[in-house]
Amino acid sequence: MTALFDKYAPLQARIDMMMKIGSDALGVKFDDIISATRGRIGNREILLAGTNNYLGLTFDEDCRAAAKKAIDDHGTGTTGSRVANGTYSEHTDLEEALADHFGMPSCIVFTTGYQTNLAAISGLAGDKDVIFMDADAHACIIDGSRLTNASTIRFRHNNPEDLDKRLRRQGEIEGGNALVVIEGMYSMFGDIAPVDEFVDVTHRHGGYLFIDEAHSYGTFGPTGCGIAEEQGVLDKVDFISGTFSKSLASVGGFCASKHPEFEITRKVMRPYMFTASATPSNISAARVAVEKIKSGGHLRDNLKARAQQLHAGLSALDFDLCAEPSPVIAARRPNEGVAAMEWNWLMENGVYVNLAVPPGTPQSSSLLRISLSAAHTEQDVQTIIDTFAKMKASQGEIMSGMMSKLQAAE
Amino acid sequence: MTALFDKYAPLQARIDMMMKIGSDALGVKFDDIISATRGRIGNREILLAGTNNYLGLTFDEDCRAAAKKAIDDHGTGTTGSRVANGTYSEHTDLEEALADHFGMPSCIVFTTGYQTNLAAISGLAGDKDVIFMDADAHACIIDGSRLTNASTIRFRHNNPEDLDKRLRRQGEIEGGNALVVIEGMYSMFGDIAPVDEFVDVTHRHGGYLFIDEAHSYGTFGPTGCGIAEEQGVLDKVDFISGTFSKSLASVGGFCASKHPEFEITRKVMRPYMFTASATPSNISAARVAVEKIKSGGHLRDNLKARAQQLHAGLSALDFDLCAEPSPVIAARRPNEGVAAMEWNWLMENGVYVNLAVPPGTPQSSSLLRISLSAAHTEQDVQTIIDTFAKMKASQGEIMSGMMSKLQAAE
Repeated sequence: MTALFDKYAPLQARIDMMMKIGSDALGVKFDDIISATRGRIGNREILLAGTNNYLGLTFDEDCRAAAKKAIDDHGTGTTGSRVANGTYSEHTDLEEALADHFGMPSCIVFTTGYQTNLAAISGLAGDKDVIFMDADAHACIIDGSRLTNASTIRFRHNNPEDLDKRLRRQGEIEGGNALVVIEGMYSMFGDIAPVDEFVDVTHRHGGYLFIDEAHSYGTFGPTGCGIAEEQGVLDKVDFISGTFSKSLASVGGFCASKHPEFEITRKVMRPYMFTASATPSNISAARVAVEKIKSGGHLRDNLKARAQQLHAGLSALDFDLCAEPSPVIAARRPNEGVAAMEWNWLMENGVYVNLAVPPGTPQSSSLLRISLSAAHTEQDVQTIIDTFAKMKASQGEIMSGMMSKLQAAE
Repeated sequence: MTALFDKYAPLQARIDMMMKIGSDALGVKFDDIISATRGRIGNREILLAGTNNYLGLTFDEDCRAAAKKAIDDHGTGTTGSRVANGTYSEHTDLEEALADHFGMPSCIVFTTGYQTNLAAISGLAGDKDVIFMDADAHACIIDGSRLTNASTIRFRHNNPEDLDKRLRRQGEIEGGNALVVIEGMYSMFGDIAPVDEFVDVTHRHGGYLFIDEAHSYGTFGPTGCGIAEEQGVLDKVDFISGTFSKSLASVGGFCASKHPEFEITRKVMRPYMFTASATPSNISAARVAVEKIKSGGHLRDNLKARAQQLHAGLSALDFDLCAEPSPVIAARRPNEGVAAMEWNWLMENGVYVNLAVPPGTPQSSSLLRISLSAAHTEQDVQTIIDTFAKMKASQGEIMSGMMSKLQAAE
């Protein structure tokens, strides 16, 4: 007789093994968060180099003041969906500000970034449409497509030629359309999509281009609109989605469109209709962050300088980096065991990065993923580089330390 | 050649028709929210009778103070998932408080209520499991099951005998289990599940019972745990989920379990892993609300008294109500047009209720749905009753008013 959790026995065994060599990389708990770049676990201060706090705005005084004022004005929650009692002036004001930033006629805000793509993709793609999705698409894009009856075709990562070939092979879509879904900057490797080429290919075949700028809104483009703006094709993209939980220092998300008809989807998107609207404080923090982003050239400049500094420093140490300099810099490690052991060592030495291992990583890679913030100083990044250098110099020790732990656990 | 939005032309036509007789019931925007029971649209003050603010805690001073303190302490957002940098002391403290309230060893909190069921159901049901779902299941339960490869079987609403029959017909599930999913109080009709009977039937067949207490946590049971506690079977339920956006006056959700193995799902639930964690302020507001709920007998007493008052008042006016008195009281209307017209009239007369029409309503009913709050006074409920009485007395006028509007729009 099988019990419900028996199916997770192999996973539990894998976790038990990881726990023998250190702590649970997916179960980190910060006892305190001191600033956008510093946390504390027990008595140890930790340099945060694995958040998505790209512009460092979570502790911004204006964002915090706006969030607190919203609680004073309108309470701690709306207790209702956007299609019931949950649309306050905060929500529509933010929608207008974002639409204005993109120069588009329509923008809809959502309660989380995950639900944004879930809602927008499932709202846009009907039964007869075909979704063309980058091979490295984020989980919420995949899950969004699972909520539709549309067929889904994957194309090679960041490869417009492969998309072109698949769109040609698909031919005329009877009674439906092609919806092409890409991301601006990919979250694991930090690599950038050739959005301009994807625009050309998609529109040449009569399709619609949807770009998720979750990691690039705020961090790229002259006014922070993202990769489409950076590459000069913002006005050609059909749909742009993003999240409030990265550069915007809150929780929630948005989807903007150059098609005014996009507004109709408010009445069909289940993850929009059947969820409570975002709290006034979350929306108000994001609203202030939009203004900070529009005028945030100095933040993006520092972020770019720090990315170049880190990329150069780690390259000089011969780390195998996954992409050109960007706010996300990931180093390939030989396997899951080494990556986990190093991740633990970094934590013990005061640096938090992300451990990313298969499944769910591109090319089944095992990564130490660093994400930078405009709040990082040159010295912070030097500390990261120095710690990685020390880690590299201590490989023998780290490895034998792991072996002892494994033996002790037998 | 079809355009992407052409598929929504019939829906747009239906909306255009609704707009001819009034304003958009799914597009209400409150210019101001004054209290848990009062909003403002333009110059008109509106009595809120269609929120899910069951305990009226959104303006509670302690909830607000905690939410603001969290912003001071830890910023406006975490910018990371619970499995990365997004687990703060606030999150684990709330999980422990909820686990303690239910007397269960495990509780996981999520960023929205919608994502709670999406995550928990897709995390619990593997490929070989079978989900048995109430016919009136909420959208997020249905969407959660779509993210699994489990087969899904619907049983008749609130009917343990029908579940029994279907479980018997299913027989032994090779290599898998039955996961039975019900709700405590159903959100549209306000009717209550016989949880005690569902416990018996489910366990007799070796299945697991999952109950969504989104609308009943805080509002039922001696300590507010919900319908399972009210019916004396709290310790027999396998999984209890709920939301922070109703009684808990915030946004987010939780799932508690009597199975300690539930913790493993933190490493498989995509809507938990691939979303940013809830903001410290949202979590902190909910944390205080949990204490208010545990000691909130007086709030539940007032809510119950108001429900009985409203139910008696509307029954005396011969409205066809969908269930016994509960915090949700829905009146069946003859059709969508009449319901929409009446909804508009109620708004013009200062009372906000929910208009619920097919699809998405049980039995394809057209409803005026009222939800009550412990913050409603006896006078507030009398005002609702009086307004419904006036509406009933003005049927002729309302109807001819609608006809004129329709003719004017031709």
